[in-house]
Amino acid sequence: MRYAYLGPPGTFTEAALRSLPLGPDDELTPFPTVSAALDSVREQITDGAVVPMENSIEGSVNATLDELAVGVRLVISHEVVIEVAFDLVARPGVTLDRVRRVATHPHAEAQCRAWLARHLPGALVVPAASTASAAEAVAAGVADYDAAIASPLAASHYSLSVLATGIQDTDAHTRFVLLTPPGNPPPPSGHDKTSLVAFMKQDRTGALLEILEQFATRGVNLTRIESRPVGARLGNYCFSIDCEGHVADARVGEALMGLHRVCADVRFLGSYARADGQEPTMADATSDDDFREAQRWLGGLRGE
Amino acid sequence: MRYAYLGPPGTFTEAALRSLPLGPDDELTPFPTVSAALDSVREQITDGAVVPMENSIEGSVNATLDELAVGVRLVISHEVVIEVAFDLVARPGVTLDRVRRVATHPHAEAQCRAWLARHLPGALVVPAASTASAAEAVAAGVADYDAAIASPLAASHYSLSVLATGIQDTDAHTRFVLLTPPGNPPPPSGHDKTSLVAFMKQDRTGALLEILEQFATRGVNLTRIESRPVGARLGNYCFSIDCEGHVADARVGEALMGLHRVCADVRFLGSYARADGQEPTMADATSDDDFREAQRWLGGLRGE
Amino acid sequence: MRYAYLGPPGTFTEAALRSLPLGPDDELTPFPTVSAALDSVREQITDGAVVPMENSIEGSVNATLDELAVGVRLVISHEVVIEVAFDLVARPGVTLDRVRRVATHPHAEAQCRAWLARHLPGALVVPAASTASAAEAVAAGVADYDAAIASPLAASHYSLSVLATGIQDTDAHTRFVLLTPPGNPPPPSGHDKTSLVAFMKQDRTGALLEILEQFATRGVNLTRIESRPVGARLGNYCFSIDCEGHVADARVGEALMGLHRVCADVRFLGSYARADGQEPTMADATSDDDFREAQRWLGGLRGE
Amino acid sequence: MRYAYLGPPGTFTEAALRSLPLGPDDELTPFPTVSAALDSVREQITDGAVVPMENSIEGSVNATLDELAVGVRLVISHEVVIEVAFDLVARPGVTLDRVRRVATHPHAEAQCRAWLARHLPGALVVPAASTASAAEAVAAGVADYDAAIASPLAASHYSLSVLATGIQDTDAHTRFVLLTPPGNPPPPSGHDKTSLVAFMKQDRTGALLEILEQFATRGVNLTRIESRPVGARLGNYCFSIDCEGHVADARVGEALMGLHRVCADVRFLGSYARADGQEPTMADATSDDDFREAQRWLGGLRGE
Repeated sequence: MRYAYLGPPGTFTEAALRSLPLGPDDELTPFPTVSAALDSVREQITDGAVVPMENSIEGSVNATLDELAVGVRLVISHEVVIEVAFDLVARPGVTLDRVRRVATHPHAEAQCRAWLARHLPGALVVPAASTASAAEAVAAGVADYDAAIASPLAASHYSLSVLATGIQDTDAHTRFVLLTPPGNPPPPSGHDKTSLVAFMKQDRTGALLEILEQFATRGVNLTRIESRPVGARLGNYCFSIDCEGHVADARVGEALMGLHRVCADVRFLGSYARADGQEPTMADATSDDDFREAQRWLGGLRGE
Repeated sequence: MRYAYLGPPGTFTEAALRSLPLGPDDELTPFPTVSAALDSVREQITDGAVVPMENSIEGSVNATLDELAVGVRLVISHEVVIEVAFDLVARPGVTLDRVRRVATHPHAEAQCRAWLARHLPGALVVPAASTASAAEAVAAGVADYDAAIASPLAASHYSLSVLATGIQDTDAHTRFVLLTPPGNPPPPSGHDKTSLVAFMKQDRTGALLEILEQFATRGVNLTRIESRPVGARLGNYCFSIDCEGHVADARVGEALMGLHRVCADVRFLGSYARADGQEPTMADATSDDDFREAQRWLGGLRGE
Repeated sequence: MRYAYLGPPGTFTEAALRSLPLGPDDELTPFPTVSAALDSVREQITDGAVVPMENSIEGSVNATLDELAVGVRLVISHEVVIEVAFDLVARPGVTLDRVRRVATHPHAEAQCRAWLARHLPGALVVPAASTASAAEAVAAGVADYDAAIASPLAASHYSLSVLATGIQDTDAHTRFVLLTPPGNPPPPSGHDKTSLVAFMKQDRTGALLEILEQFATRGVNLTRIESRPVGARLGNYCFSIDCEGHVADARVGEALMGLHRVCADVRFLGSYARADGQEPTMADATSDDDFREAQRWLGGLRGE
Repeated sequence: MRYAYLGPPGTFTEAALRSLPLGPDDELTPFPTVSAALDSVREQITDGAVVPMENSIEGSVNATLDELAVGVRLVISHEVVIEVAFDLVARPGVTLDRVRRVATHPHAEAQCRAWLARHLPGALVVPAASTASAAEAVAAGVADYDAAIASPLAASHYSLSVLATGIQDTDAHTRFVLLTPPGNPPPPSGHDKTSLVAFMKQDRTGALLEILEQFATRGVNLTRIESRPVGARLGNYCFSIDCEGHVADARVGEALMGLHRVCADVRFLGSYARADGQEPTMADATSDDDFREAQRWLGGLRGE
């Protein structure tokens, strides 16, 4: 298998990819942008791409949401949630008391601010495109950087030594997804999620309420809902939604059909096992057996 | 065909039955109560029974609703709506100025009160079990009745003469239904109604709201909903419901399945052509084609 | 105080009235119909009237619902729930083995059918206008009645002896209400109900759903909802509703205002202590304190 | 008045600020980040700050949403919507055929991609922090830039000449808001919007549905709803909401009170005139008069 990921090497995205069950011959290729990684799958250069989807502090990754909503369709085959932990890394031999210039991504700086104030009060933090590229720059010895705030993986990648570990001030988690070409979804695992994008019919007041009721009537619980703008006018949105359950579940299937009817368009983004293994909240009378029994009863009424 | 109806001969129920397309050899038999008429169908003594279901002034006929809800199951095959018009009828030779005692059912008296006050201010109105039995008593010459308020049909039945016609003060309509043994529903006519009884799960707040949402989510319009008590405790109800559409319609079928899941029990009482020939209100995206297209789309997602 | 009740003496309605805290000088007057009893209040002949409202077996008393909905307005001041128990009563000296003709109301006969089949298999049951009038007729010695099925109160009223007690086959309860002229409602008792009639705007699909949502959004629980026909056309309904709570409660008041806005008309029928003393189900964040705090917060936003 | 805006000079944000009715002595100060601009208001260094809120192509400006949701509270006093139009600007004397390196913000590049492919197929586009800083760099002659894609305002700011105007491929609009310290909202204009952030009570399934119903029950139309993550765990959201109407409107006030009750917290972000002057969609029976009449009616019932 050939996997794309949002690079450069040493990103948390690479760490997420490496947490999947990989084979010894699998190839992992970094791409500079989410779009580039996904295009490599669409063009069959790779078989799948791991990209970040949302972070508990920064929110959704808009580039990923928009690619999923309006780019050539891919589906989610796996999700991975990683606790974001930062190390302070430097070239071998550099000690903490000699660190004056620290490279990192602004988000990482924001999450390590208290640690920096306590341990490196005089250091200058210089923004980089990613934590991995900061580590890369430190390793390459460019721009007079003394250290980088980066993922534990980055240290090993760029043969850097770890001056301090777990320096983030607060816990944060990032959710990554493996995107693959559309195809038959994996069989239900018993703890699945289903992702989709619902495009509202324009100018219909109450459209979001109607969308939510399609789920509620079938007892399907939502775990995420986000609006994203569509088109040139302000006020035109689609909704990026994750719900509990698998497309093969009767209640999820019927909710999807309801959405398909009431929305301008619904894009199915896959059913896949939840990273946290949590089983769905089952409302009363919404099991496959309940639906099957209702179908059997209706068939009898109809004389089928 | 052998038909039962709520008698005695000359009732509005008989008039409703006679408005159906009858064959020359069909037998029409009056029964003294709604229950007796329906039991004759259940015991295969007759093939169908016509009974009153609701009146625009008096409301539902509880005996009929309760038989439909908890008696051995029958289904509605036809509905008939009749405008309730009353005649003042008497034995031949009796003239209006000699009428002193008028027999009729209290409901009929209530609906003719203004006419009576104007034209027969001194007459005594004596209650009878039905307007037809009042006419029968007048014909038989019992109890010193001079006249009866009854249906036009009753006059011809009992060879009475009509002293005044259309004497009701206000317009009123009564809806009758033909009940037959459960079997395959007639094919959709394009202007159908479906009747059912939904039994709530006990002690669930919001249960009626949940029932209504099963219809609303599929765009199925209700034309009647009534609560009826169930069992010995106050506060325990079932709901007698008429909705637009036919059980063979996709939106009605899915709503029925939803009810079957969320209710303690649902009793299907038939799909049949509306007496008024009115076509259903179709909400956006609720036609059979819309459901079929959604089913096809879901099948594709599931790899079926 | 002068009280009207649905007579004749010895009815369950009289028993319900006697369960209220009466004074030694209170006058109790029977009236032949629900309308007559209520008119006596409207015409200030009496100060209040007790009438039956619903029975756990027979359902609502339509005459009462319709008087409350469209007659000159009265309000409910008290509710009484009575377990319906029947006695077989006869003139002194009559023994069970000599009973051949039993007078009673058809509902009472229906509720004692198994007992009659076992203990008086050969007896003829003759219908009467009420159980109390059956007892009255037995006492008066008319129509060759040997016994009556009636309330325990009827036996003492008409000086009859009790041949058998508690002969009903199933438990049943009847709910009675004391109706008085509109005025300030009694203060909240902590376990109140509020009754009202909501008239739908014509031809508005989803009107009932909208009515229910006015309650649901404020966390007000319904205990009864019934449709009643309005006017000459079939398909035109009002809804007779009981909800938990008192008109003085913030959540009930706001729900009532919501109904007042979305309905063609809302008729308030009073707030009164529940007969069963059950406290209301309180949804999260719906106490008077919650509403007051929200009001205070809004006032701050508005710069009031 | 002293105004802050998201700089540097020449941004679309400055153009938005300049479209407000400014006085001759008003001071306009650029700040490097949204947070810095807003902090200047909070610290009373300025009286108000204009920042971007959402773009029809890029979506919401997360920095602004998060500052509004969790920073020290400010409120929206004005909104401005600007059509995003780009010019290609260069130092005087530079002609289109000599442009090899173009600086701009990646979003601007994305919106001008087709124009660039047609007119500057060989040019290298270099990312800048903002379109204004790209123009600034071109003016300063740094980094060998030949031209910048920037706002029309930037050209005049940095004394650059316009090589091509209106080079964007698609229409896009950006919405800016003027944020000021909390205080009494401006009086209703007849075409107002109200903004708020609703924080869900944790772990309550159906919480978003409940939030939407608070608006729907009072007939208040939403124009924007977006989820934003809250806290360290994934799956914890607040909702950033714009609705039609003014906090002084009865229907909006009651909806806000409902939210205040059912949410963990509601932050009011102001009522202000809509930039597009569009009047609110008024559902039946939701005017201030309707609410006042309902209040008056309730007062009568309560004996107030």
